[in-house]
Amino acid sequence: MPSRIVYLNGHFLPLEEAHVSVMDRGFLFGDGVYEVIPIFCGKLFRPQAHLQRLKASLAAIRLDCVWKEAAYIDLFEKLLQHNPEQGENRSVYIQITRGAGENREHVFPKKEVTPTIFVQCTPFEPVSFETYMQGAKAITLPDIRWANCFIKAITLLPNLLLAQQALEEDAKEVILIREGMAVEGVASNLCLIKNNRLITPPVDGSILSGVTRSLILEIAAQQQIPCIEQKIPVAMLQEADEIWMTGSLKEILPITQIDEMQVGNGKVGPVWQVFFRCYQEIKLE
Amino acid sequence: MPSRIVYLNGHFLPLEEAHVSVMDRGFLFGDGVYEVIPIFCGKLFRPQAHLQRLKASLAAIRLDCVWKEAAYIDLFEKLLQHNPEQGENRSVYIQITRGAGENREHVFPKKEVTPTIFVQCTPFEPVSFETYMQGAKAITLPDIRWANCFIKAITLLPNLLLAQQALEEDAKEVILIREGMAVEGVASNLCLIKNNRLITPPVDGSILSGVTRSLILEIAAQQQIPCIEQKIPVAMLQEADEIWMTGSLKEILPITQIDEMQVGNGKVGPVWQVFFRCYQEIKLE
Repeated sequence: MPSRIVYLNGHFLPLEEAHVSVMDRGFLFGDGVYEVIPIFCGKLFRPQAHLQRLKASLAAIRLDCVWKEAAYIDLFEKLLQHNPEQGENRSVYIQITRGAGENREHVFPKKEVTPTIFVQCTPFEPVSFETYMQGAKAITLPDIRWANCFIKAITLLPNLLLAQQALEEDAKEVILIREGMAVEGVASNLCLIKNNRLITPPVDGSILSGVTRSLILEIAAQQQIPCIEQKIPVAMLQEADEIWMTGSLKEILPITQIDEMQVGNGKVGPVWQVFFRCYQEIKLE
Repeated sequence: MPSRIVYLNGHFLPLEEAHVSVMDRGFLFGDGVYEVIPIFCGKLFRPQAHLQRLKASLAAIRLDCVWKEAAYIDLFEKLLQHNPEQGENRSVYIQITRGAGENREHVFPKKEVTPTIFVQCTPFEPVSFETYMQGAKAITLPDIRWANCFIKAITLLPNLLLAQQALEEDAKEVILIREGMAVEGVASNLCLIKNNRLITPPVDGSILSGVTRSLILEIAAQQQIPCIEQKIPVAMLQEADEIWMTGSLKEILPITQIDEMQVGNGKVGPVWQVFFRCYQEIKLE
């Protein structure tokens, strides 16, 4: 198997040779942001939406790294070409950190430093056919993350601990509860169906503005299904007909069990069928 | 000026040569913990307390890295000897991450990986005589950090953004407010004096169990000053006679201004004088 070729600070090189200084503020502080862009049918899927969010994340942490969209996309395309043997299901990961300062100090470096840009493309295991047919289990856990989850920051330790707990409880996702409200997953947005209406939490500072979430809203408009963006009290989960968790790699994951509770009739629902089909069509466009 | 010699995964080497893989989970996720141990009079100050906390942080993130205390201290001593020209005021920084997995995945690596251990010693600028005489300004800001701040994790992006804001508002620290309570600083614990009694928030999951904080409680016992560990409503800041923020490198920082408000009579207080003197004596022991 040939080495994975990655991009780091201007160079394409084998992963084994891709190193950063221990003084990199990504390594010392988690001082950086990232994006994951799926590849469908060999094409980057909605890269503009991801790059716009990357720009917003960079602005939110005051990291000045001005690249034109076209330059990023060109870089992604080149990287994909460098890794021709990865198969159909893969994604591009980009991480930008504030770079390596001379000293470890909480405040921004006094001398200007060059941001670190790391990009890799890797295969991912898509959600299995069985999971789409039977639905998945999620667990609820308190949202221990920071307040500004609209920023796609690399400070993901809370997410790791939550995801690991889900794995150990044989669940595919975590529904995070903050002040009595179900907000989103560890790596997905939350969406529920009640009486043929779609309900999803509004994009405020506490959740990520998901690219797949936007797509769901587009499909809803197309299908003339009313959409309500509102906070979701935990009790509402019990009354939902269908619950989905959406994300670039999870696509639209139907949740049929939450903790020990069955969602709706415990089966993947009819509205999910419609949305999933529309979503697959959009992917092929 | 000779290169700073640092320790990384079993080797002492110049900082310029100290690199980690881009796949290190410290770099990708902030999946690690750290400690900072000050050196006073050429000696590590209370290393056991720091190493016990390091052990607790590692356990809290389920990172298995079992070293004996003596092995750490031996390593620190060697590193200090490798850097003989750093002067009086310096500290040892140790960071342990979960290491580099094969893939970027939120859950813990399936194949066992070796944790990354990075240690450096660096000079620090002590709090100036003027600041101790006149007191410092702090600002209050909402506590945007995660829920488990008892873990000394490297996911410090929220802290960086808060510290930078303090710097830009000409303040030395931030008093973080969570649900109406003043909890701690970005890199220090909070302590106030009212009617010759010392009040400090209890060590629950939301704040760090500060080594200097423990020392303050020791001094209070020695000086027979009553101590109350209780939550501190914001309004209580206005009524305090003295406010201090304590930490290994900040020592006991007297706060004489919070936002636009004067603390007590706006001068460094008499109780601070007593504690600071006792603290300096303990440092020399």
